[in-house]
Amino acid sequence: MNHPSQLDANGRLRHLLTLDGLSRATISALLDRAEALRAQSRGGTVPLSLLRGRTVMNLFFEPSTRTRTSFDLAAQRLGAQVINFDIAHSSTVKGETLLDTVHTLEAMHGDAFVVRHKESGTPAHIAAHLRSRAAVLNAGDGDHAHPTQGLLDALTLRQYRPDFSTLRIAICGDIRHSRVARSDVHAFATLGVQDLRLCAPPELAPTAGEFPQCRIFHDFDEAIAGVDVAIMLRLQKERMQAAAIPSEADYFNRYGLSAQRLHRAAPECLVMHPGPINRGVEIASDVADGPQSLILEQVANGVFARMAVLATLLDADTGTANQA
Amino acid sequence: MNHPSQLDANGRLRHLLTLDGLSRATISALLDRAEALRAQSRGGTVPLSLLRGRTVMNLFFEPSTRTRTSFDLAAQRLGAQVINFDIAHSSTVKGETLLDTVHTLEAMHGDAFVVRHKESGTPAHIAAHLRSRAAVLNAGDGDHAHPTQGLLDALTLRQYRPDFSTLRIAICGDIRHSRVARSDVHAFATLGVQDLRLCAPPELAPTAGEFPQCRIFHDFDEAIAGVDVAIMLRLQKERMQAAAIPSEADYFNRYGLSAQRLHRAAPECLVMHPGPINRGVEIASDVADGPQSLILEQVANGVFARMAVLATLLDADTGTANQA
Amino acid sequence: MNHPSQLDANGRLRHLLTLDGLSRATISALLDRAEALRAQSRGGTVPLSLLRGRTVMNLFFEPSTRTRTSFDLAAQRLGAQVINFDIAHSSTVKGETLLDTVHTLEAMHGDAFVVRHKESGTPAHIAAHLRSRAAVLNAGDGDHAHPTQGLLDALTLRQYRPDFSTLRIAICGDIRHSRVARSDVHAFATLGVQDLRLCAPPELAPTAGEFPQCRIFHDFDEAIAGVDVAIMLRLQKERMQAAAIPSEADYFNRYGLSAQRLHRAAPECLVMHPGPINRGVEIASDVADGPQSLILEQVANGVFARMAVLATLLDADTGTANQA
Repeated sequence: MNHPSQLDANGRLRHLLTLDGLSRATISALLDRAEALRAQSRGGTVPLSLLRGRTVMNLFFEPSTRTRTSFDLAAQRLGAQVINFDIAHSSTVKGETLLDTVHTLEAMHGDAFVVRHKESGTPAHIAAHLRSRAAVLNAGDGDHAHPTQGLLDALTLRQYRPDFSTLRIAICGDIRHSRVARSDVHAFATLGVQDLRLCAPPELAPTAGEFPQCRIFHDFDEAIAGVDVAIMLRLQKERMQAAAIPSEADYFNRYGLSAQRLHRAAPECLVMHPGPINRGVEIASDVADGPQSLILEQVANGVFARMAVLATLLDADTGTANQA
Repeated sequence: MNHPSQLDANGRLRHLLTLDGLSRATISALLDRAEALRAQSRGGTVPLSLLRGRTVMNLFFEPSTRTRTSFDLAAQRLGAQVINFDIAHSSTVKGETLLDTVHTLEAMHGDAFVVRHKESGTPAHIAAHLRSRAAVLNAGDGDHAHPTQGLLDALTLRQYRPDFSTLRIAICGDIRHSRVARSDVHAFATLGVQDLRLCAPPELAPTAGEFPQCRIFHDFDEAIAGVDVAIMLRLQKERMQAAAIPSEADYFNRYGLSAQRLHRAAPECLVMHPGPINRGVEIASDVADGPQSLILEQVANGVFARMAVLATLLDADTGTANQA
Repeated sequence: MNHPSQLDANGRLRHLLTLDGLSRATISALLDRAEALRAQSRGGTVPLSLLRGRTVMNLFFEPSTRTRTSFDLAAQRLGAQVINFDIAHSSTVKGETLLDTVHTLEAMHGDAFVVRHKESGTPAHIAAHLRSRAAVLNAGDGDHAHPTQGLLDALTLRQYRPDFSTLRIAICGDIRHSRVARSDVHAFATLGVQDLRLCAPPELAPTAGEFPQCRIFHDFDEAIAGVDVAIMLRLQKERMQAAAIPSEADYFNRYGLSAQRLHRAAPECLVMHPGPINRGVEIASDVADGPQSLILEQVANGVFARMAVLATLLDADTGTANQA
């Protein structure tokens, strides 16, 4: 799903629904802004006031402490007011439609809606039906996209390997159902990575042709050979049965990142994971906690990447504003 | 229930428990203040600091995302600290009494308690037992009152029809159980509306004599004839059976506001609804979304009406303050 | 459990896990700071900015509206950003380990973690595994400690009875399972109280030797004789059976603080309770609400005690700061 609708008539970002179709310049500008905001806020310790008077509403229809907190902190550190919705307890209880809820929140002058939903396309659906100039930020929708994850992964990687053109990257796990994998591929391919490898059990591999930029592997030992970056995906345990995987131990044996397997990669291969991690399932504890792991750097950069998106979409000087 | 206790010894508003018994001057002053705050905050985009250092505590014993968020934003945009209580998870779990909880929160220097409760009279009960000079704001109690809804409805209507003396208004739905209807009637009658019509199925009609200011109808086609404003109430679906209504379609057929039925009203009749709406039950989608609908304006004004009440009750210059 | 780890290499407080082992100077300094912050904030009505840019994260694995709100207000009134975790809905849902959750929150630059957990030792466990310079504040762990309760009780008492050396204090209730009793004993003994009496039913008495500073009683009439302060503990109703107590009425008869029993204490004996109270179980309503009761003063002081701890642990001038 390409979403031209996330750009306004002048080609500027109005929503962030997916990285698919965004230009290299747009993605690079977001990463540059994240770095500038990190510097400006001295690593998040100095509150900024860019979004003073703006209201950011977190609409999480799926629970996610990690991503919700990251957006909450990003908004607070930019000086915005934040409203968090526990959707299970919300007006959907009373049978109101999703769009009526959104229009109600727009009427209260919500400037940004951060939306996580188990159904792919929900953020785009909301964006298409807004009545104000509010911005929609996709915080993960079904299998479709998790664009701020793609941005924070690119931001993290860029700090350690600034030249993407020579990078060899393997992403391993349940590629078929992974919005993280999709957004990572869109980010990395757009930023110039040539050697992108996706590794999954056959039942969890992407459908043919979805990722023309990538080589598909079913054998992790092959996929990881010589790579500079290994990105491990979380295994949703409910997928194991469908994937004919008899046990977690078996999955780890075939697709887990052990220290031994990491030796097949390039020296100093970087290790990433979107979290939360299943220790001993997709990644060994000593690798997750080891010197090549960037897992906590990813978390730290998540806040700055989200600040950059919020600032870009809401800052009166550069983006759109609620003028309903 | 008239509550003289919501006024202090000087006749100034100390709590807002009901609009019943408030003078026209008091209600008008609240509406004027709401408009002033809308202007001063440039439509809610410029944060104010009137309530800096004050603490507003939202005690919602009934879930209500819409009203809770509106109060939360109102308090935040006035610079107050806000504490939101999810009462299901609160100290009532440990068997503490309601008043002990309130006294505890007063001791923490809560300046205002915004209370929603399914039992009529709970906010008044709390107000009667406070030990500090905190203010209680009724955010809806049982069938009794929802005074900020009455204010926001009057505020919205005043923008479009400033002369209330000539207005013909019909309120249609489950009048008997509607705190919205009660607060609307109190607001409109006090502000000078002469022609107030209440329409309900017989089983959901108000008891005889409760509304001497109003004419009671059971036939919506009669009630709506020639009115300038139609206010539709949400049908609680659990009431249908008690009201001998066989189906939602049947209810809509008899009491729903369709485009066709709206033609019986005066030209440019305004349409209001407190939300959340049941599309196709009490109101047709094309009417709810049509040019005569003020539903989202009501939501927008809700924030300003609540800002006005909070500012009036808590502002050191004009109202009461916690001096416990 | 003594926790030298809560002090840094210079002997300054880095975490607050327990009062056990803290010096009189350290505890007195915290109480002095609480009083200074009360004055500086004019009783909590003037927001301070000591913790501007800092992030306080409330991790409550046990529900506690009262303590959570107190910490939330303390942090807000010092100008910090606050993140509240409803742990039932958090990443533990996804099976992440507690330490992975904490490391993730550290990576987002959490400066302080306020931790309540039903397992004794959880805050210390977290403190021992931090990767940043964040501070851990124990908000109650199992039967072990509730150090801010001990501080607020000492703070409250000091206002009324500044000379601790002559005080006679009785603590009555389920001593064995009470983290409040433990932290109170640590505070009072360190601050110089000589006559400390613990009263409990035999089955709920502390194990022999745990409290060498205290005299143990099973008869409340004996224990309360002549005391200046009576501190009543909440009876967890699930303990009654284990304690061979047939009914609440029976418990009240033997261990409840009635007005009549209070007459056995010294004149003007002060009455305290950590709340929430079970009226008619451990304390009679007329005593809880009477002129000798400090129960609401305890609540009020709770906010200032917690402000003092947060300010001491996080203030760049005097304590530690997150420099991860």
